[in-house]
Amino acid sequence: MNELNVDFGDRSYPIYFRHGAEQELVERVLGEARTGRAIVVSDENVSHLYAQSFVERLRQCGLNTALFAIRPGEAHKTLDTVRAIYEQAIQFGIDRETPIIAYGGGVVGDVAGFVAATLLRGLPLIQVPTTVLSQVDSSVGGKVGVNLAEGKNLVGAFHQPQWVFVDTQHLSTLDRREIRSGLVEALKHGALGDARILETLVHHGHELQDGHLQHVGSLIAQAITVKAAVVARDEKDRGERMVLNLGHTLGHALEMGTLSPALRHGEAVGLGLRFMQALSVNVLHLSRAAEERLSQALDAVGVPKHWGRYVNETVLDRISLDKKNQGDTVRVIGLRDIGDPVIMTMSLEEFKDRLVALAALDAKEEHREGK
Amino acid sequence: MNELNVDFGDRSYPIYFRHGAEQELVERVLGEARTGRAIVVSDENVSHLYAQSFVERLRQCGLNTALFAIRPGEAHKTLDTVRAIYEQAIQFGIDRETPIIAYGGGVVGDVAGFVAATLLRGLPLIQVPTTVLSQVDSSVGGKVGVNLAEGKNLVGAFHQPQWVFVDTQHLSTLDRREIRSGLVEALKHGALGDARILETLVHHGHELQDGHLQHVGSLIAQAITVKAAVVARDEKDRGERMVLNLGHTLGHALEMGTLSPALRHGEAVGLGLRFMQALSVNVLHLSRAAEERLSQALDAVGVPKHWGRYVNETVLDRISLDKKNQGDTVRVIGLRDIGDPVIMTMSLEEFKDRLVALAALDAKEEHREGK
Repeated sequence: MNELNVDFGDRSYPIYFRHGAEQELVERVLGEARTGRAIVVSDENVSHLYAQSFVERLRQCGLNTALFAIRPGEAHKTLDTVRAIYEQAIQFGIDRETPIIAYGGGVVGDVAGFVAATLLRGLPLIQVPTTVLSQVDSSVGGKVGVNLAEGKNLVGAFHQPQWVFVDTQHLSTLDRREIRSGLVEALKHGALGDARILETLVHHGHELQDGHLQHVGSLIAQAITVKAAVVARDEKDRGERMVLNLGHTLGHALEMGTLSPALRHGEAVGLGLRFMQALSVNVLHLSRAAEERLSQALDAVGVPKHWGRYVNETVLDRISLDKKNQGDTVRVIGLRDIGDPVIMTMSLEEFKDRLVALAALDAKEEHREGK
Repeated sequence: MNELNVDFGDRSYPIYFRHGAEQELVERVLGEARTGRAIVVSDENVSHLYAQSFVERLRQCGLNTALFAIRPGEAHKTLDTVRAIYEQAIQFGIDRETPIIAYGGGVVGDVAGFVAATLLRGLPLIQVPTTVLSQVDSSVGGKVGVNLAEGKNLVGAFHQPQWVFVDTQHLSTLDRREIRSGLVEALKHGALGDARILETLVHHGHELQDGHLQHVGSLIAQAITVKAAVVARDEKDRGERMVLNLGHTLGHALEMGTLSPALRHGEAVGLGLRFMQALSVNVLHLSRAAEERLSQALDAVGVPKHWGRYVNETVLDRISLDKKNQGDTVRVIGLRDIGDPVIMTMSLEEFKDRLVALAALDAKEEHREGK
């Protein structure tokens, strides 16, 4: 597969899957920048590796291109970063046809996407995701936004890109931890809708972590296919799309918590998936076989076996602030089987009680194993 | 007419026209706030006059309601104000069903609307406009946003309200300058699509300015009907909606310029309409009769006869930054006749040349009259 269409009616868009195709990307951007200008948003790391030379090539082709390299990491996914880009973009000179190209990982895509959603009330957005995480997940579906001190992704918009350009050659410069973190989201998509993904991860997860990426192309295409189908059916996250939050209620709370060293997004979601698995066994009677398959896949991408000891007061407070809550009601995603997610509604209190109880069980088990 | 439907397909919404109907507004908000919470955004002036007592009544009915009163005036239509509301709203406790009620004039509607468009990626918005300007214009059509130091409305979104509640009793506390400023936008809608509005203004403009508002109800309904029809045909401002910018290219530049004392929005647009009239005579051969009718209407709502001396270097620089520009091309609205607007495309340079030439003519005429 080298192209996938994300179906949003008259705003449908393609995802291109490539390996080592910078020249094609240059040509596509030139075709998009109808008024002679473009803005590339990247981070300092990706800028050195790829974005600077990419921007040079655009300029050599006569395109007036600005490059804004933000500081890397989730800590800079803020309104201050967005405001700095607004101001630089206005000073550079833009019109409503000027495309914003998000060249980087999930943080770059979220920040640049929010700028594109709001500057001049909306500019064309092009996603060039360069990490496993952004390639399998965040670059598709149109969710963009930033964090507030009070929580992750509390401010944002739905802004669909013109197209997404997935070039797996970008993955060759990722470190092991980053790859693992991204594979967790691929795993999540497997659990939600494609058992082949879990199969691939169980058999090749260790090689993938080591940077042997020969299986990555099809894995990424499979994972993104699951996501594209879900978001196309529910663009604004009012129903089915919620299933993509599998593992994310606890995951977000852990990621924003006070853990030191901080967890990456995928690492936090991995622990959230361990909890979700326990909850699904508990409430939805998830079968032993499915449980086993999930465990193997989580092991294979390097998610720690135990998660219970991370659940503390700060984490519980974060969960109360989760934007997926409705008043005092939580909607949390469980699995009845691989490929059969369920939206469970329970009171915030019940959810926290179950979380605390399962965390205590898990911590006890870890303690026993540690003896 | 006591209700008008704005047609956006499955996101259509009603505008209610009322006079002294706070009890009905309380009941409608109670019906909207399904998860037991609501946020009212107002400004310090409107808060003292109306919003505080309104919020008290909601609380007496058991609705957990927060009131955020921003500082009044265009100078506070900023990202800082938006950020302060984000933080207070999160601390108050919200979910995705919590409505944001914009209770005030255009600044309140724009700021609260942008918060509603972006907080938790979108909350239900209710517009309760309390000025002539916001009742005839800004509360309908979904444009929300804030200013940057570099220009007006450079950051924003399209976010349609659930409904709009126009209560003309709110107008009784406006000062003369504010009423005049609002009547200019009603006049603009008349020029674009309903000659009856110009007729009413010519005959009753002076009484209206003096606060004799018996003609306001039908005037507001007529003006908003013109706007609703235009925005329904072009929600995202890619084509016809542009005609609503009649008078606004120069108007925005004057408003953001360094004039002292600063002009109100409608005052600046009024001067912009004088220029547009001259340009239309010049380029589109607007008839003498139409020119005369427009002049009378502008006189009747208190717009100064002369505008040329306001055009200086700062104003010209502002025009170059206008977000309606496309590269070096400007699209500016002229009139071929009352009710027959034309989108004219010209180079930025040509536009500025014409502006400077017509401004010089007008200034010379003012000088001659002054002798």
